[in-house]
Amino acid sequence: MLPTSVEIREVGPRDGFQNEPEIIATADKVALIDRLARTGLKRIEVTSFVRPSVIPQLADAAAVLTAIDVPPGVSRSVLVPNAVGLDRALELCEHFEEVGVFMSASPEHNWRNVNRTVEQSLAELEAVIGRARDAGLRVEAIISTSFGCPYEGVVPRPRVLALARHLADAGAQEIAFGDTTGMANPVQVREHFEEAVASLGDVQLTAHFHNTRGQGLANVLAALDAGCASFESSFGELGGCPVPAGATGNIATEDLVSMLHEMGIATGIDLLALLHAANAVRAVLARELGSHTLIAGPVDWKRNG
Amino acid sequence: MLPTSVEIREVGPRDGFQNEPEIIATADKVALIDRLARTGLKRIEVTSFVRPSVIPQLADAAAVLTAIDVPPGVSRSVLVPNAVGLDRALELCEHFEEVGVFMSASPEHNWRNVNRTVEQSLAELEAVIGRARDAGLRVEAIISTSFGCPYEGVVPRPRVLALARHLADAGAQEIAFGDTTGMANPVQVREHFEEAVASLGDVQLTAHFHNTRGQGLANVLAALDAGCASFESSFGELGGCPVPAGATGNIATEDLVSMLHEMGIATGIDLLALLHAANAVRAVLARELGSHTLIAGPVDWKRNG
Repeated sequence: MLPTSVEIREVGPRDGFQNEPEIIATADKVALIDRLARTGLKRIEVTSFVRPSVIPQLADAAAVLTAIDVPPGVSRSVLVPNAVGLDRALELCEHFEEVGVFMSASPEHNWRNVNRTVEQSLAELEAVIGRARDAGLRVEAIISTSFGCPYEGVVPRPRVLALARHLADAGAQEIAFGDTTGMANPVQVREHFEEAVASLGDVQLTAHFHNTRGQGLANVLAALDAGCASFESSFGELGGCPVPAGATGNIATEDLVSMLHEMGIATGIDLLALLHAANAVRAVLARELGSHTLIAGPVDWKRNG
Repeated sequence: MLPTSVEIREVGPRDGFQNEPEIIATADKVALIDRLARTGLKRIEVTSFVRPSVIPQLADAAAVLTAIDVPPGVSRSVLVPNAVGLDRALELCEHFEEVGVFMSASPEHNWRNVNRTVEQSLAELEAVIGRARDAGLRVEAIISTSFGCPYEGVVPRPRVLALARHLADAGAQEIAFGDTTGMANPVQVREHFEEAVASLGDVQLTAHFHNTRGQGLANVLAALDAGCASFESSFGELGGCPVPAGATGNIATEDLVSMLHEMGIATGIDLLALLHAANAVRAVLARELGSHTLIAGPVDWKRNG
């Protein structure tokens, strides 16, 4: 039984921009976020409080947060990597509603990504989640490599779901399962979300798929089948984890919305407005993007063709 | 209940090459087909007997057919557009095992594509199918725009299935439903194949999806769910119906095989060998292709990364 509507969180302004090699002007970022916020998207990840020396592209986090102008009802979220990042974020906490925290389910990936053991990350995140909740923020915890690790291969599902349980118990209201390097397949995804829905019914469960091997929307379909009704994606198919070089990462929000609407599943998003936003970021980046619907147009256009 | 194995027909050497603007040398075509025939693929569409003035790229059909060297057990198929095309093909019928015939389910698309009404095409195809069967050939009938027409919009399913019934009754042992301009969605595909399996159980039923809006493999998953176990695809994601310009067409065989293998569904195809073939056609065409797995590599490579 497919859901009749789903929620989509747009991650392009953080996850997408972060992976761009050329610094994007703050004014361009602000204009793109303001545009996205007028497409019907209700949740947008706008920036990250990582150390500017690590990700110079997002060094303008404060400037972006204070300059954007999103309509009422659109929730702004920021990614915080650790306690120090939360400290920086909280100084501006009147400018956003949600924080995202993240760790990997696989020890090797977590170590390479944040230089901590899984146990160290979990302990730190539990404290960060508690403090963010105390500040009145909504918290999403993202579990990277939930469907496979490029260094360790299969990540045992009980380990992923136990980690999710810990993060939910610490106060996270939403758990996102990330297919960080595009290793998920639909059989695995169905089983994963069937088990997750059964064991984590008290929190919002979100799927974050990559289109690394072209399976992104097939995995969305599998997750929908298993009761998942919350997805993350990136306009223009920006970002993700471009490993190896040239590989695509996130699924494109416009491809996701096109498929869902064609399936009769509501998103609240105006696909044409979203395509205009994707076209705008293509112009800013001055390169071709991986998005399919941005090139092909929505099915409705074709019907009039 | 997913099938445990599926059959894949490679259409790149016909459907893919046909859409290339630069003429590919016959020797290159032959080398690529011979390579594909050693990947475990058991069925390959090698050329077409359309009028050379219409599709100059395939004017070397006879030369290709007589030069290729495929192992025993690999079935060669050729596309014939009409009775004249069949006449030309039959002169070389010791060099292939199967013919494909095609027409559109939507009158407007059929008229623009072959300048005939649906009734005229059906009558001609019935005769062509009969003559091909009399010559000992296996016949596949392809119904274009089975899931939507760019000129007419939705194509009523009863019309598509009635057409399939006529073509099967005329002697076609296989019916392929083509999503010619990438308008299919998974809900529609599931319903379509559930009905098709129920009403056409006496013939092989094949799905031919395009990745126009990124949904190609999601539609594959939906078709698998509904009992379809036969697919057509193109190595390198070549070909299809690139309308509008720049849009992708066929799903990439290597993306399809990667997903199926990860799902535990057998294809008999060596994915690495297939990727080498896709890499070879990329070298011949000297441009980047739409295939995802060709860039990202199979999941197994990543596990060793």
